[in-house]
Amino acid sequence: MTSTTIEHDIQSITRAARQAARQLAKLDNAQRDRALRAVADHIRANADDVIAANARDLEAARKNGLPDAMIDRLRLDAERLAKVADAVVEVADLPDVLGAVTSETTRPNGLLVQRVRIPLGVVGIVYESRPNVTSDAAALCLKSGNAVILRGGSEAIHSNRALGRCISAGIESAGLPPACVQVVPSTDRQAVKVLLAQADDIDVIIPRGGEGLIRFVTETSRIPVIKHYKGVCHVFVDKAADRDMALSIAENSKAQRTGVCNAAETILVHADVADDLVPALCERLAAAGVEVRGDDKVVALAGGTSATVVAATEDDWYAEYLSLVVAMRVVDDFTTAVAHIETYGSDHTEAIVTADAETAERFLREVNSSTVVVNASTRFADGGELGLGAEIGISTTKLHAYGPMGAEGLTTTKFVVRGDGQIRT
Amino acid sequence: MTSTTIEHDIQSITRAARQAARQLAKLDNAQRDRALRAVADHIRANADDVIAANARDLEAARKNGLPDAMIDRLRLDAERLAKVADAVVEVADLPDVLGAVTSETTRPNGLLVQRVRIPLGVVGIVYESRPNVTSDAAALCLKSGNAVILRGGSEAIHSNRALGRCISAGIESAGLPPACVQVVPSTDRQAVKVLLAQADDIDVIIPRGGEGLIRFVTETSRIPVIKHYKGVCHVFVDKAADRDMALSIAENSKAQRTGVCNAAETILVHADVADDLVPALCERLAAAGVEVRGDDKVVALAGGTSATVVAATEDDWYAEYLSLVVAMRVVDDFTTAVAHIETYGSDHTEAIVTADAETAERFLREVNSSTVVVNASTRFADGGELGLGAEIGISTTKLHAYGPMGAEGLTTTKFVVRGDGQIRT
Repeated sequence: MTSTTIEHDIQSITRAARQAARQLAKLDNAQRDRALRAVADHIRANADDVIAANARDLEAARKNGLPDAMIDRLRLDAERLAKVADAVVEVADLPDVLGAVTSETTRPNGLLVQRVRIPLGVVGIVYESRPNVTSDAAALCLKSGNAVILRGGSEAIHSNRALGRCISAGIESAGLPPACVQVVPSTDRQAVKVLLAQADDIDVIIPRGGEGLIRFVTETSRIPVIKHYKGVCHVFVDKAADRDMALSIAENSKAQRTGVCNAAETILVHADVADDLVPALCERLAAAGVEVRGDDKVVALAGGTSATVVAATEDDWYAEYLSLVVAMRVVDDFTTAVAHIETYGSDHTEAIVTADAETAERFLREVNSSTVVVNASTRFADGGELGLGAEIGISTTKLHAYGPMGAEGLTTTKFVVRGDGQIRT
Repeated sequence: MTSTTIEHDIQSITRAARQAARQLAKLDNAQRDRALRAVADHIRANADDVIAANARDLEAARKNGLPDAMIDRLRLDAERLAKVADAVVEVADLPDVLGAVTSETTRPNGLLVQRVRIPLGVVGIVYESRPNVTSDAAALCLKSGNAVILRGGSEAIHSNRALGRCISAGIESAGLPPACVQVVPSTDRQAVKVLLAQADDIDVIIPRGGEGLIRFVTETSRIPVIKHYKGVCHVFVDKAADRDMALSIAENSKAQRTGVCNAAETILVHADVADDLVPALCERLAAAGVEVRGDDKVVALAGGTSATVVAATEDDWYAEYLSLVVAMRVVDDFTTAVAHIETYGSDHTEAIVTADAETAERFLREVNSSTVVVNASTRFADGGELGLGAEIGISTTKLHAYGPMGAEGLTTTKFVVRGDGQIRT
């Protein structure tokens, strides 16, 4: 396709989305939920088509030599597709996020001033790999009254188009404007560039994928971007930590699942308990197959254990391993732990293990990462686990949303003012 | 200055701001308020210095042939400076915006999940002309626990520096880190470009000034920008409008003050009442010195009045006149009025005049501009008037803030999670 054709096609999509968003904003929650249930029905009814389309993506992935882990993330079988449809119904079951009055005040001149929740308008999602993002993102955007433009990766294009057809059929059968959800058919990278330039017709861009994709989107976009680059999450084992709890939380935070942004990458141990806890932590992590990169004290203390412990370099404190590797450091006191997190952290998620209530509250107050946790695993930093129902993404920049972001994160508020003839003097 | 020196200086400022923001976030509201009162005291005690510095700016402005209106906006006399100090105290008197728990839920596994209000971090303000922005913005940022970097225009540099000295003295006397508020000393445009590139150390940029400045900042910045380009505000006179109220609100919205973003620029009149109301509106506006740009029907109906009415072109519907000119159009029905606002509006502020409650509620629901008003002037779209206490700016983009933005708009929320050993399975 020529670059003029791509520009024309993308602008047709974004203008249609803007129009659809205006119509969608005038509908009520029951109409949106009806459409979501119809989408789930169409996914179930067309499971064979979607799985056949997915098979084409899988074949191409094998031909292109994609790693097994990526091929697995791409795969849709009957069981996974049933879960995809269920997830859409779960979003329909969430409470309405629109129309809520978030504040109300009567001014001395009698004006009644409210703030009322409304949709953002048009959301653009740029993502890689997993085709379930197509239906998950479409569902959350529809639930929150937003039109959405979905631009997945070329590796999942057949799956995404097939899911897009189910979504469109569901939406239309419920009487919603078809352009509420649009899958960009072009896999040309130029299409993403054109999309990211449509600042008048798209209100926010949410990239989901690897750090490379997110940096590309952030640097290219003229539209506000909600994103996180990485999750360098910390577990701080305080001097007042319960020993068993510390071992269990450190292991779970690191090793329960490694390829995710809320897995711990660095463990900080208070010097007062390091003699006992560093060897114990190293043993526990070694048993879970984790390799440790330690500072001098950790290396010395772990000498007699079965763990593989190598000396950490400065780069290790910044690292998001996403694998069975963890950095470990002994810190002299609470202040040094917080300073370490401020210097090397990514504002994602930090946990403290402590039985001292005052230390816990101080940690929760002083650490301004998007999720701060006392006596629980960092792995709970997730929209579903924190009660948001579902998650469109996680933000580690503080504008608009900070932390896991669900349907409410896809809304804003307008000022609604009721008077009886007031003028300004 | 060489561009390397500028880059070095700006990066020193932004890094110091990031450090100061971390310290500031750990203080309580009483400490921040004490600093604000000390700032006001220092402005009052150093009034002569500030006024002398301002005189240098005024002299340069006259030499450079700046228009009288701009020179007037630049001027600080004893009376205005007293108001500048009072405004800082008023911000100190506002309730604390930090630490509030905005939601709380206990998960089935026993985790207590809260969202707690925290500062954004470091705010950059890029502005023109009025030196009181220096102290107003500094006060709102300090109140909300944010460090701020202030980069005013070269036309006000001596006034801004003098106010900056008062602010620094006040802050230091209250024991806050001096880098909480920094005035960029360089008037070089390169300094703004370097500032807008410091995405690691600045969390948000708020430009205040003309559309040219705002477009420059938006297109240059790698940091999220909160802004509005213009205010093309509408007054829709419905068929059920109270006649006197319609005249009074239309006049006040247009003519009470013209050079402001919440002044009305277009009046829409329902066709059912146009025969009576168009001539009446034209007479009323003519008496206030307003020239009308009308569609064919308006031109025909206004023939017998004393108003100056010329035929509107397509450009008039998009125009932000900021002067004693208004566009006027007759619309066939409610839907056409809303469609006109959607097509030509700027998402700033729209008012309807109607005695019909159902029509009023439909307008409030269907129009998603940042402020929607029933039976009152558009001029109330202002942080102070809507009860925010003071205003750091107005946003017409929906990310983070939408509409007038006060101290709370300079905050976000983090997730605070309390457990007793929960791990994820």
